[in-house]
Amino acid sequence: SVNPDLASERQTASFSVEKLTALLDGGAEQTRIRRAVVEAIESDPVFSRENQYFQTQNERYEAAVRKAVHLQKKMHEMGWTENGPEYKYIYRALSGDVAFLLHRVFMRSISVLGSDKQIAKWIPPATKHQLIGSYAQTELGHGTYLQGLETTAVFDIATQEFILNTPKISAMKWWPGDMGRSATHTVVFAQLYIHGKCYGIHPFIVQIRSLQDHSLCPGITAGDIGPKMNFEHIDNGYLMLKNVRIPRDNMLSKFCEVRPDGTYVRQGSQKINYFTMTTVRISLISDEVLTPLMKACTIAIRYSAVRRQSKLKPGEQEAKILDYQTQQEKLLPQLAAAYAFHFINDYLQELFDRGYREIQRKNFDMLPELHALSSGFKAVITHHCTAAVEICLRACGGHGYSLLSGLPSLYTKILASCIYEGENTILLLQTARFLIKCFMAASAGQPVPPSVTYLAAVKPGKCPAKNKLDFLRPDIYTEAYQHVAVRLISSTATKLQDLIQSGVKKYDAWNQCTVQLVQAAKAHCHYITVKNFAATVEKLETKAGIQRIMKHLCDLFALHGIFSNTGAFLHDGYVSAAQMDMVTASYLDLLAVIRKDAVPLVDAFDFTDKNLNSALGSYDGQVYERLYEWAQKSPTNKMSPAYERYLKPLLHNTLSKL
Amino acid sequence: SVNPDLASERQTASFSVEKLTALLDGGAEQTRIRRAVVEAIESDPVFSRENQYFQTQNERYEAAVRKAVHLQKKMHEMGWTENGPEYKYIYRALSGDVAFLLHRVFMRSISVLGSDKQIAKWIPPATKHQLIGSYAQTELGHGTYLQGLETTAVFDIATQEFILNTPKISAMKWWPGDMGRSATHTVVFAQLYIHGKCYGIHPFIVQIRSLQDHSLCPGITAGDIGPKMNFEHIDNGYLMLKNVRIPRDNMLSKFCEVRPDGTYVRQGSQKINYFTMTTVRISLISDEVLTPLMKACTIAIRYSAVRRQSKLKPGEQEAKILDYQTQQEKLLPQLAAAYAFHFINDYLQELFDRGYREIQRKNFDMLPELHALSSGFKAVITHHCTAAVEICLRACGGHGYSLLSGLPSLYTKILASCIYEGENTILLLQTARFLIKCFMAASAGQPVPPSVTYLAAVKPGKCPAKNKLDFLRPDIYTEAYQHVAVRLISSTATKLQDLIQSGVKKYDAWNQCTVQLVQAAKAHCHYITVKNFAATVEKLETKAGIQRIMKHLCDLFALHGIFSNTGAFLHDGYVSAAQMDMVTASYLDLLAVIRKDAVPLVDAFDFTDKNLNSALGSYDGQVYERLYEWAQKSPTNKMSPAYERYLKPLLHNTLSKL
Repeated sequence: SVNPDLASERQTASFSVEKLTALLDGGAEQTRIRRAVVEAIESDPVFSRENQYFQTQNERYEAAVRKAVHLQKKMHEMGWTENGPEYKYIYRALSGDVAFLLHRVFMRSISVLGSDKQIAKWIPPATKHQLIGSYAQTELGHGTYLQGLETTAVFDIATQEFILNTPKISAMKWWPGDMGRSATHTVVFAQLYIHGKCYGIHPFIVQIRSLQDHSLCPGITAGDIGPKMNFEHIDNGYLMLKNVRIPRDNMLSKFCEVRPDGTYVRQGSQKINYFTMTTVRISLISDEVLTPLMKACTIAIRYSAVRRQSKLKPGEQEAKILDYQTQQEKLLPQLAAAYAFHFINDYLQELFDRGYREIQRKNFDMLPELHALSSGFKAVITHHCTAAVEICLRACGGHGYSLLSGLPSLYTKILASCIYEGENTILLLQTARFLIKCFMAASAGQPVPPSVTYLAAVKPGKCPAKNKLDFLRPDIYTEAYQHVAVRLISSTATKLQDLIQSGVKKYDAWNQCTVQLVQAAKAHCHYITVKNFAATVEKLETKAGIQRIMKHLCDLFALHGIFSNTGAFLHDGYVSAAQMDMVTASYLDLLAVIRKDAVPLVDAFDFTDKNLNSALGSYDGQVYERLYEWAQKSPTNKMSPAYERYLKPLLHNTLSKL
Repeated sequence: SVNPDLASERQTASFSVEKLTALLDGGAEQTRIRRAVVEAIESDPVFSRENQYFQTQNERYEAAVRKAVHLQKKMHEMGWTENGPEYKYIYRALSGDVAFLLHRVFMRSISVLGSDKQIAKWIPPATKHQLIGSYAQTELGHGTYLQGLETTAVFDIATQEFILNTPKISAMKWWPGDMGRSATHTVVFAQLYIHGKCYGIHPFIVQIRSLQDHSLCPGITAGDIGPKMNFEHIDNGYLMLKNVRIPRDNMLSKFCEVRPDGTYVRQGSQKINYFTMTTVRISLISDEVLTPLMKACTIAIRYSAVRRQSKLKPGEQEAKILDYQTQQEKLLPQLAAAYAFHFINDYLQELFDRGYREIQRKNFDMLPELHALSSGFKAVITHHCTAAVEICLRACGGHGYSLLSGLPSLYTKILASCIYEGENTILLLQTARFLIKCFMAASAGQPVPPSVTYLAAVKPGKCPAKNKLDFLRPDIYTEAYQHVAVRLISSTATKLQDLIQSGVKKYDAWNQCTVQLVQAAKAHCHYITVKNFAATVEKLETKAGIQRIMKHLCDLFALHGIFSNTGAFLHDGYVSAAQMDMVTASYLDLLAVIRKDAVPLVDAFDFTDKNLNSALGSYDGQVYERLYEWAQKSPTNKMSPAYERYLKPLLHNTLSKL
């Protein structure tokens, strides 16, 4: 039975939840396919996550391997293929709690970086899991700065082999998933040396464990890097190589080859390869960032609709905490952000599909823009969503702090997305470099890529809003965001030039501007997100109340961004103090409006209870019953040796006899 | 051997680290006592935290009980007493990783709330640990709103007993520490009923487990609430009561008593009791909030001095990440905050000591101000420091994400401080209520408490700074903070009055202002923190370079606050856009200045390697060696059954035979 406090929230929905779900899925047919996958996965006990919060790192790893193996069977049974429409829903249905994810990266790198011969040799056994691969790039001493990697691969012309070494402790490979305990092979990135000359980083296939008994191969030291904040199910590993010899054929050689005589040959264009690395940053947004945020919003908002605490009106019953303005102000902007980033993700996916088609036609013109967008948006979205999940967690008070709420593991997992696939600050600075370059070009009247043409059309002016309702006009707030982005980019460009002209070395000047460059890159991405949200709302069909509620969320996302960062808009007087008070008024008004649809808006994300795995967030809102039921299953409710060993002697005053 | 990159940082310290340590400790003698305690604790293997990151919740609990029992012996051995000067250092030396902390709260509540007879009966056996107590206040359904507690205690005149019940699932006690598995007794807070009339919340001593065999007493259901984000070592518990009868004498009766005939008698003033609850919020700041932040700063800054990544100048070796402006901008403001909050904590401690003396003289005038300060500062400091620890964690990239860095557990533990002892938003609103009241009083020319007299002296004016150096003048920035606090408090008071005058009900008007009230309360605390830091620096002795470096940190703390919240200062033009650019310039300049002393500034916190328990933060900076050494000890590096069960059949293609 559904908690009446939650049931009543659903009765007053101003829009069709089912229609919104279909919109998010990209059509009702997609919704149907997704639900069928979820049903198949969740009805299979092997994929259960029921005891997850009670398991040790070892147990989580074992379960993940078991699931990965079982998934092979399941896919065969169900007729699912890796290229089928179901595939993207499987990972979501498993909540990513499965092993051999790096095996897929291993295969992809061979497909992209390997010669036809290498693909023919390695892909079939890998597909059949006759070997398990990993991807060994990051080292103890180097992550984002790939040129600094210290692992070496020296070509031995006499034996036609490469000799691989991790010559110092900082060169040890560190972090590769599936490598700590599972993998038999890995792609190792190493500095290639021929006749004493370094040719830079190249990929090599190295066997690390016996296919017979899984023992480590000669010269290999490998193991698990131990406990992390999350990803207990993954055996992130370390790897040391001591004079490990591999045949010449094991260097992936689509783009570069070492001939038998030691001649180094570059062939073809690596640009498509760089493009692949760029797209990974976009492809992670949906599964690793948006889904966790949507889950966190679902949990926190449903909980806030059933949790009653303190009185809003004297004499009445205690109020739902969702009725407090402060609670709305915590949660509803995060909900709006989930939608805003969902739509910008659609935009980016489409842009990258277009980019891919162009690149296949050997047109590489879009590459700099795509690189800048993928870097900036990866950083902005992961940062924003991580902060949002944390807000959801804190907004649930003590119960949010329990692992049983599901919120802590959502937080600790999404946090990693700020670090992997490029550390966020570094990425934002790459976007900033692109923006500065484009700004200079635009100022000189040169053409610039479409996403930055606005830099050429700098209008001084002031915000024309006359009352608080004007701030619900997308043209008004989009213009304000654009103005701030232009101002931050242009002022930082000016500072940079001034420093250089005053004699500061270029690299020093850059370093002295980096704090502001990061701000400028963020402002650029924020502007595009708002503009895209507004444009998306514009195109929605007006029926079923969808467009109306999406318009409210778009307004909220935009005004929350201004309200939280007023200085950027006030700085040059583009928005006046009086106008900022209008922003605040409209923003606070919107909270009360959206609050009415808050539960339907999270229902539309369509998570099953099993997928949410949260005692606070279930569809029926029976929060306290579930917390108690789940707590009783905790291993901490079994007898502890601590009683006989320590408590009893203490209580019986016989400690001294110990 | 110390990593040369770290050693070089120490050679150029501009001040005496030892002198600064003594300043932080409150004198060189205190430093000596602290170090002696640390030495005694750390040389005792029972107190080791070496394997902490590898342990399960059960193992952590058992270790904490073992340590608590051993601590009794140790204190006796060392001649340490609970009232001695060593006591406060013991908890810090143990990093709080010990059981029976709620036993102390149990004893304190009896001492404060119990009659002399009750104290005489319960305190001696509790002191000897012939019973173990807990403190059962929070319920599944109620935390901060105590009046809403649902547990009942009905007086049965016939048997002279109270009958205790948790009548619904939401009434179940939930969270009390030491209660899940250890406690034999607890103080239960329940609604007192006599002859069907409710007299509100009162405290009762209830035995929950047998002193003989630890089995649950009749009518008692109790256990552990399961996994949490941290505090694995504590058995936070649940408790249901079904017609549990306790003698009349078990109601703690210093302030209220139920006579044998059922007459309810109030006696004495409860004000001193409220004061006790208020002081708890202040007393947690040092151990639970500042120490973790200081540890996080130590770890992140030492790591940033030995981690080299990418090149700052072309052709040179890779740069220490601490040399990047963006890294400085992440870490150094957190370091400044640690010092700022250390000094405001000194100020608050002193104020509360004075308050205590006044209250003992039956002068309760300071109570509202103390309550407002303790609420506001608890919220502001826990919030700020939690965010700061998270920044430190993220600033260490992937290695910060490993539990071995120590940062994840610092973060997950400090996060709880935002929730316990009063949820932060609720607390800030209590401070805001006080501020609004004082502002109205001040406006009407009535006297107000010392900390808010500034509300009476509202000067319109503008910030007088003429160049960036002016923003290094404490009078300039303190005045700016004061101006913002006054503006936010007065504008919210005006909005509140306007709403009420326009016919909105008082409680609705309050709710509609809460987002802004929270901002006002934060601004008030921020202002006092800056003012106090500046005043503290003023009084420091000028020798040994201490005052100079503290002045820099004070400036940084103040300017970082403006830089991160520019809108508040720009809003009414108190600070102009041109002046804000000066703030930015001075702020960024300061980063480069303080960076030179960053390592000595964290060395002064004087944490031992064992106390830090971080592979990244050790004094010698041998980061990679330690990560590798520690990872090898992980239980995930033992043989896993996953190989025989799943991997081998998969690799040998014999899965179908399973």
